[in-house]
Amino acid sequence: MKLYDYKSAPNPRRVRIFLAEKGIEVPMVQVDIPTAENRKPPYTDKNPMGGVPMLELEDGTYIAESVAICRYFEAAHPNPPLMGRDAKDQAVVEMWNRRMELNFALPVMNAFRHTHEFFKTRIEQVPEFGHSQKRGALQQMEWLDGELANREFIAGDNYSIADITALVGVDFGRISDIRIGEGQKNLKRWYDGVAARPSSKA
Amino acid sequence: MKLYDYKSAPNPRRVRIFLAEKGIEVPMVQVDIPTAENRKPPYTDKNPMGGVPMLELEDGTYIAESVAICRYFEAAHPNPPLMGRDAKDQAVVEMWNRRMELNFALPVMNAFRHTHEFFKTRIEQVPEFGHSQKRGALQQMEWLDGELANREFIAGDNYSIADITALVGVDFGRISDIRIGEGQKNLKRWYDGVAARPSSKA
Repeated sequence: MKLYDYKSAPNPRRVRIFLAEKGIEVPMVQVDIPTAENRKPPYTDKNPMGGVPMLELEDGTYIAESVAICRYFEAAHPNPPLMGRDAKDQAVVEMWNRRMELNFALPVMNAFRHTHEFFKTRIEQVPEFGHSQKRGALQQMEWLDGELANREFIAGDNYSIADITALVGVDFGRISDIRIGEGQKNLKRWYDGVAARPSSKA
Repeated sequence: MKLYDYKSAPNPRRVRIFLAEKGIEVPMVQVDIPTAENRKPPYTDKNPMGGVPMLELEDGTYIAESVAICRYFEAAHPNPPLMGRDAKDQAVVEMWNRRMELNFALPVMNAFRHTHEFFKTRIEQVPEFGHSQKRGALQQMEWLDGELANREFIAGDNYSIADITALVGVDFGRISDIRIGEGQKNLKRWYDGVAARPSSKA
């Protein structure tokens, strides 16, 4: 088993934190995103979409997409559960992970991709969309601050993959000047808690 | 238990098809999206994000996000499995469902949202982004056609939630003139197969 990783990108970090929380060690191979090693063969023979991370299983199966890789480890190593235990709990965690991904982490990444020099030649940049996504991400943080008034973690009383997605989103937001606001005390309390876990250094 | 639904929108349809494939019947409540019933109380007291569909459980828990609702029913009624059986299978289905959602169905929806009259006052429209998303969705269909040369369904030999996501994406694309190309024989064969299942009428 091998995990194709790149240290400075947000999506691979989601998987590394997930593995650290589970106490699982997987051999890693670094893929050099800045030189586009992930956009040409042999990497694209394994993952035609070119995304990093990617997991190679013993039988030669390739699993791309960070949440799909997490799903594999959740099923193979259920404890501690990071994606919910019973049907209701799994659904609540998935709801929150999707909210954090689609309404927060994705806008944070879009804000970067559509405005930063690095992506100028890599995608069809639309700066106006990037600015709008930044405003959306900031609004989402304001809303999340209110949600966190009455519970410790994003999806309830237990740390879950939704906290990982949100933590990575907050940290990656800094490069686009998307930051926790002065008055967002609940969000700050939550952030300090999850950032202090050893897994956040993974 | 109640499912908040709206007949003409793509995300609620994903859940209805999923339930039809499982043979599960859930009482439905229609939410009128055109008059923004989902953007004000009492709906937003239940789902602050305002998204439809939403599932109300017996204990009063609200589950928003179509895939989270599907996850609930997959765990509560495992057969037939639509999200994979073992760890590897679950990860492969999740990878394909995410590819179909993030790289195809979401661009299809963005193409509509960022160019159509209906969303002019509802979001910060960026038509240039919408056009770029349409090109992205069309490229993804071309790629998918090649992928489907050697297998029956999106994620392998079995029908899964990834087929539902892709089917809903293809059907919703029509309004933005995103259509299966003349030469895309594998994609056409797959589409005809999944569209002919009784669940597609749900």
